[in-house]
Amino acid sequence: MDTADKAAVVDKYVTAFATSSIDLIREIFATDATLEDPVGSDVRVGIDAIIEFYTNAFEMNVTLELLGAPRCAGNAVAFPFQVNAGGMKIEAIDVFEFGPDGKVTSMKAYWGAENIVT
Amino acid sequence: MDTADKAAVVDKYVTAFATSSIDLIREIFATDATLEDPVGSDVRVGIDAIIEFYTNAFEMNVTLELLGAPRCAGNAVAFPFQVNAGGMKIEAIDVFEFGPDGKVTSMKAYWGAENIVT
Repeated sequence: MDTADKAAVVDKYVTAFATSSIDLIREIFATDATLEDPVGSDVRVGIDAIIEFYTNAFEMNVTLELLGAPRCAGNAVAFPFQVNAGGMKIEAIDVFEFGPDGKVTSMKAYWGAENIVT
Repeated sequence: MDTADKAAVVDKYVTAFATSSIDLIREIFATDATLEDPVGSDVRVGIDAIIEFYTNAFEMNVTLELLGAPRCAGNAVAFPFQVNAGGMKIEAIDVFEFGPDGKVTSMKAYWGAENIVT
């Protein structure tokens, strides 16, 4: 999986939010993927739990805005972004790890209360 | 370990580069810490290997500049920054994980060739 492919998944992820597309979420994540958002909270395991998570986010019309270039390294990408949720903005960093088929096998989101900027 | 303590370690890390201080590196990292820079390369294990890594960096007068707020979550912090190495600038993201004593037990650096910006 080359750098362009990993960066394309990040773009697809931003698009999934912009279009509230659960279909794109299914394309992005492996069926046995894990999701920890924020890091330190309970880990969601498997595509059903992951879809439930994004369904809730999309119902709240959350959108994402990249705050810099994706950093691709090894089987992973880390990227800084802003979450727009109603009037609230949160600066976060996500780390995706990819399996050999190019699907995300692990998503970890780093953010805390002090990253709520408005 | 609260958020302010984790953010303070990030500040100390930036200061370590600014002052070429191996003493600060010893304060930051656990003796059995691991370092993977960039992610996907060989993992350096233990404080001696870590000090060797930073000694080389400091000899090249590398400095760091934060590109946004540290994102503290769980036992970890992720932060975006720019590496200034001579005329070269690299946009990276580091993730530190902390042990119960507040020392960094794991450092992972996410960056690739496409993150070299000048």
